[in-house]
Amino acid sequence: MTARERVEQYLSDLYDQPVSPLLDEAMTYSLLAGGKRIRPVLLFSTLDLFNVSTDKGLKTAAAIEMIHTYSLIHDDLPAMDDDDYRRGKLTNHKVFGEAVAILAGDGLLTDSFNQISQDDHLTAEQRIRLIAVISGAAGSRGMVGGQMLDMTSEDKQLTLDDLKTVHRHKTGDLIRACFECAGIIADQPDAVIRQLVKIGENFGLIFQIKDDILDVEGSFEKMGKSAGSDVSKDKSTYVSLLGLTGAKEAMQEMVAETEEMIHELSGGDASLLELLSYITSREN
Amino acid sequence: MTARERVEQYLSDLYDQPVSPLLDEAMTYSLLAGGKRIRPVLLFSTLDLFNVSTDKGLKTAAAIEMIHTYSLIHDDLPAMDDDDYRRGKLTNHKVFGEAVAILAGDGLLTDSFNQISQDDHLTAEQRIRLIAVISGAAGSRGMVGGQMLDMTSEDKQLTLDDLKTVHRHKTGDLIRACFECAGIIADQPDAVIRQLVKIGENFGLIFQIKDDILDVEGSFEKMGKSAGSDVSKDKSTYVSLLGLTGAKEAMQEMVAETEEMIHELSGGDASLLELLSYITSREN
Repeated sequence: MTARERVEQYLSDLYDQPVSPLLDEAMTYSLLAGGKRIRPVLLFSTLDLFNVSTDKGLKTAAAIEMIHTYSLIHDDLPAMDDDDYRRGKLTNHKVFGEAVAILAGDGLLTDSFNQISQDDHLTAEQRIRLIAVISGAAGSRGMVGGQMLDMTSEDKQLTLDDLKTVHRHKTGDLIRACFECAGIIADQPDAVIRQLVKIGENFGLIFQIKDDILDVEGSFEKMGKSAGSDVSKDKSTYVSLLGLTGAKEAMQEMVAETEEMIHELSGGDASLLELLSYITSREN
Repeated sequence: MTARERVEQYLSDLYDQPVSPLLDEAMTYSLLAGGKRIRPVLLFSTLDLFNVSTDKGLKTAAAIEMIHTYSLIHDDLPAMDDDDYRRGKLTNHKVFGEAVAILAGDGLLTDSFNQISQDDHLTAEQRIRLIAVISGAAGSRGMVGGQMLDMTSEDKQLTLDDLKTVHRHKTGDLIRACFECAGIIADQPDAVIRQLVKIGENFGLIFQIKDDILDVEGSFEKMGKSAGSDVSKDKSTYVSLLGLTGAKEAMQEMVAETEEMIHELSGGDASLLELLSYITSREN
């Protein structure tokens, strides 16, 4: 089984003995809605740099994916982005209703920390550091703060620096956390963890620039959601600020820098390099 | 400063250096909306049984209050209970709008675990146990599960056992967690923590029965929200199942049992006893 399949398996077995069967059904619906599992794969690939097995990262990877999934459920709500489709399937609230979708998100978020707190592959010290990193990356100083910034900057003309701040928090922090968590799980010294943080920050930015490019170039069939939604909302993006060619150049520059950092840590033969190439060439 | 004032102070200083000032404003609005701080006070009173200072419990108490506050913000949303007032003030979404209210709840919930993870008054082992207890009590196997059960049982005639299950999770688990967390912070042996869990479960039930009684007997001026809202929704409550007198008797019986358990642990001179009497005589 690949690492990605192991996460898929783990998440599909996660919820039994429900308090509310409907809640579990709604959480599981979105958890297993065919996500790319990019965050878990980033974490495992980083563990791989240090020859640490998937076992030690499985619950942390699952927890991060639970947080990512909750954020999608809440983002899709009518009061937020009001999206009917996600990954080609109906969004959570379209299937279960708004109230259930809100609670499914709340449940996934809360349960994610419970997962890590009970991970007996790791010491208490490691688990606490992981929770500190992930809750920091996901909370009001991270993803939620970024989501709010993004909302309040709609219809505003952003500078490139503003845009970077929005994305650093909205999507970057949780991606960066995958790298930082892998360093903690692999018991790496602080200097290495700092390097991983930088690599993770770059991955987050590359990911977002690619998203902005796909929003212009993508199609519904490939992406499972409507392309061009940023343009129709008149949002500032890397493409609107730098142009399509400029955005692609900025991405390639950052890819080159990141490849060099990975080489320094790994000596050159790393699955992270393949991932980087996958992220920049993906079509959805 | 009383313990309650210390929590109030702590929560009012919590949010500076925002990523999004609006998000911090919304979170702080509800955090400081004049809650009774019953959960923090329960935790501190339990610590007091073991002569442990407020310092050691401050962040945990704040975290639990943050979780309680998030749950109120989300419960009040139009898709959920659709309440305009809470504690005599406009609800979060009435002031900030739905999208901000959803994110404010998400932020408070996530940040609560960050608080505990960074509490250097406690060992890593203690912090992990606290997070395991609180996330278990608040997540899909606890409060969120209970909230969903409550929603799906509206318009249904519940048995007393069904009703107890709903309340054990919806309101009971987080109250019970206050007692259990105090035992962990005070480094008590498992046998004592098990006793605390029982006392906490009783407090939760007593609290809920009293709430149901107040819903019939209370008034808007005293409660800061509309009385009779359960009756108008045709909900099963302790009062609808046992009658007003029966509910009061059931509460008194449970109070007597709980007093005895507290006596056993404390020798008789405990602020928890005063609290028990406060909870059963409160008018809002």
